[in-house]
Amino acid sequence: MNYPHTIQTLIECFKKFPGIGEKNAERLSLHTLQMDEEVLNIFSKCLADIKIKTKRCKNCNHLTEEDYCEICKDSTRDHSIICVVEDPKNIITLEKIGKYNGVYFVLNGLISPLDGITPEDISLDKLIDRIKNEEIKEVIIAVKPSIEGETTTLYISRVLSGMNVKVTKIAHGVPMGAEMEYVDLMTLETALDNRILVS
Amino acid sequence: MNYPHTIQTLIECFKKFPGIGEKNAERLSLHTLQMDEEVLNIFSKCLADIKIKTKRCKNCNHLTEEDYCEICKDSTRDHSIICVVEDPKNIITLEKIGKYNGVYFVLNGLISPLDGITPEDISLDKLIDRIKNEEIKEVIIAVKPSIEGETTTLYISRVLSGMNVKVTKIAHGVPMGAEMEYVDLMTLETALDNRILVS
Repeated sequence: MNYPHTIQTLIECFKKFPGIGEKNAERLSLHTLQMDEEVLNIFSKCLADIKIKTKRCKNCNHLTEEDYCEICKDSTRDHSIICVVEDPKNIITLEKIGKYNGVYFVLNGLISPLDGITPEDISLDKLIDRIKNEEIKEVIIAVKPSIEGETTTLYISRVLSGMNVKVTKIAHGVPMGAEMEYVDLMTLETALDNRILVS
Repeated sequence: MNYPHTIQTLIECFKKFPGIGEKNAERLSLHTLQMDEEVLNIFSKCLADIKIKTKRCKNCNHLTEEDYCEICKDSTRDHSIICVVEDPKNIITLEKIGKYNGVYFVLNGLISPLDGITPEDISLDKLIDRIKNEEIKEVIIAVKPSIEGETTTLYISRVLSGMNVKVTKIAHGVPMGAEMEYVDLMTLETALDNRILVS
């Protein structure tokens, strides 16, 4: 005995999402019965459209519905600074700070020899082409502090070493507001190594 | 700076579900970009159809896409026993046991004087009509053991007291496999009160 066909199919669809199990899929599917028809229609349309409408920016790989993303098209931004991130999500987060006025470049992942992910796989060529062809002053690498992140950072800095461009990476250290006693040793070690002059 | 329109709208849709916050909605929406177009189209169609196709069984209020649900239409089941539940979900769970062969009745909630929910609000009339007009031998009440559940159980048993029908309720007590030391006192008290003869 299952739910009626449409509910049962909806449950199967919800289960395809990461982190949504049987019980949760059931709860979410039954909840749709209480939702506004209008919201359901908008939701339905978005799902049908999402893969057709959403593309990658030809310049930076960010998500967009046009050829170029809003940031690349924005002439008030400083196009001589490129911030390199792993995921479009990171752009949204960095933009929330509201302080960075340069542009971005989204890698298709991080270099990982263990997983067989080489520099060719993560569209680094496209980044290097941009640095060769545009007047880029600085490349800020903002990827996560993992082995893959550090490998990617190192690789980018080596490839760009011959060119007239400053390569920086965001600071890794004790997060703001953290209690010192709860900070893991690796973070603490990095924070010590990267200490900066106060006076 | 937001995501492109379709993704952003999808995030807003996911946020309308209980237990899905901003971060999770973002994660689920971005995940759709990696899903099969076919799955997305099925998902989309279900959402558009769900409220139109899903109805309540005219006999027992269970969810169905026809006038009567599969259980009410099943002539191999014992239509003289009605199990009263609060939610269609409970039917699915009880059916998983695979042992109950009677039929069901779904209440539209439980009586709750504090919330102003009266017997009229939970379609008890319909249940009583069935007992009057059909040859019902037993009504099994399977609602949660709360004040509302007990009130509803008591009310049903009183209303039916004059009629020639047995009214029972499912056992409340220590759940199977539970460690005695972790069972709450109210459950333990109920289990004591409801002890059954072993030999």
